[in-house]
Amino acid sequence: MARKLYELVGAEEDRRFSPYCWRTRMALAHKGLDAETVPWRFTDDDPVVKSCAGRVPVLIDGDKTVHDSWTIATYLEDTYPDKPSLFDGLTGRALAAFFNNWVDTTVNPALIRIVLMDIYDHLRDVDKTYFRTSREQRFGMTLEAFVADGPAKLAAFRQTLQPSRLTLSKQPYLGGAAPKYADYILFGAFQWARAISPQQLLEPDDPIVPWRARLLDAHGGIAGTAKGYPV
Amino acid sequence: MARKLYELVGAEEDRRFSPYCWRTRMALAHKGLDAETVPWRFTDDDPVVKSCAGRVPVLIDGDKTVHDSWTIATYLEDTYPDKPSLFDGLTGRALAAFFNNWVDTTVNPALIRIVLMDIYDHLRDVDKTYFRTSREQRFGMTLEAFVADGPAKLAAFRQTLQPSRLTLSKQPYLGGAAPKYADYILFGAFQWARAISPQQLLEPDDPIVPWRARLLDAHGGIAGTAKGYPV
Repeated sequence: MARKLYELVGAEEDRRFSPYCWRTRMALAHKGLDAETVPWRFTDDDPVVKSCAGRVPVLIDGDKTVHDSWTIATYLEDTYPDKPSLFDGLTGRALAAFFNNWVDTTVNPALIRIVLMDIYDHLRDVDKTYFRTSREQRFGMTLEAFVADGPAKLAAFRQTLQPSRLTLSKQPYLGGAAPKYADYILFGAFQWARAISPQQLLEPDDPIVPWRARLLDAHGGIAGTAKGYPV
Repeated sequence: MARKLYELVGAEEDRRFSPYCWRTRMALAHKGLDAETVPWRFTDDDPVVKSCAGRVPVLIDGDKTVHDSWTIATYLEDTYPDKPSLFDGLTGRALAAFFNNWVDTTVNPALIRIVLMDIYDHLRDVDKTYFRTSREQRFGMTLEAFVADGPAKLAAFRQTLQPSRLTLSKQPYLGGAAPKYADYILFGAFQWARAISPQQLLEPDDPIVPWRARLLDAHGGIAGTAKGYPV
């Protein structure tokens, strides 16, 4: 059975905009593993996704169904130990776990406050209704209020990146000389934004810019050639 | 020549309160290396420290003089490769560099807003004068104003710890099953506070508490038996 990755898409089936699915997509490419995309939208009633907490990414690999991007990453590392490593050992994995938590609790929550309406604009009508209702309930305000004062939210987002900015001014990748899973964790945020938002997230002289460019080109350019806006 | 570590101390010579010196002290212990403490205070006119950007820690190891805690950590790793590793390879080192930047730009700046007056209270009079003048100039306000509204600053500090809290609720150390240099980076912040402040930084049920307790006991209890307040 071909390997399959359930990925979140917009109204257009090839507009893949989940930061978590991009982590997995890049991790698969890092390991040299193919996987067919199964497009999934917010209101799709798919039994596989439903059985996986209703969320993507979901990876089907032979007789295994694995969900949650971090769980998938550790699954791939343990299942394909002879392929290029995502972590380089248990200490690298442990520190990547911290990095995963840092992006999830700091970077992504700052970025959603910038791109929320851009997501909305790229959904099917039926998904728009679901998205507005569920997010307005979650955030306790309208989508429009949530993204209000864009310049301040952009400044806050850029501020959250400071530790990665300092690191990438001294080394080419967060993982060192070559990209590792930590790079894909943060890159997923930029690839999420790129898929649905024309906003320029970084100043041109930000040390993060050349790092992002290298990852857009990595693994045959799978990220850079995916549908999205120029960065 | 005996190995020497210049460490910041208060009015009492055995009250060592630099977060950066504690990183180095723990790294030395991790490697099983002894080093005599050379106490240094803010206004001491020491030619060694002066030649090292006027800051501690400074490590003198044979004919080598090394300063800056991160540079010392990488020096120890490269100079003593047969001793227990601080990083476990280049990916571990690269991710520890990020972690170092994260603590320096996020955790420590939040903590200084809580403990600044506690530092002041533990200095010699001559250092108090220097400290007040230099810090009030740096921060653009009085020391007292800088730490005003303690409860809000404590809440902000605790919030910065969220990614490490989530990580330590799933694994015993930031470095995984055993402490690595990343643990000492964050632990330095707590050991800094413990040396000079009676304030309770963590809620009793915080997953960071048992991790801190293990590091207070680590390497023969060098941190836990150092002069400070109960945590």
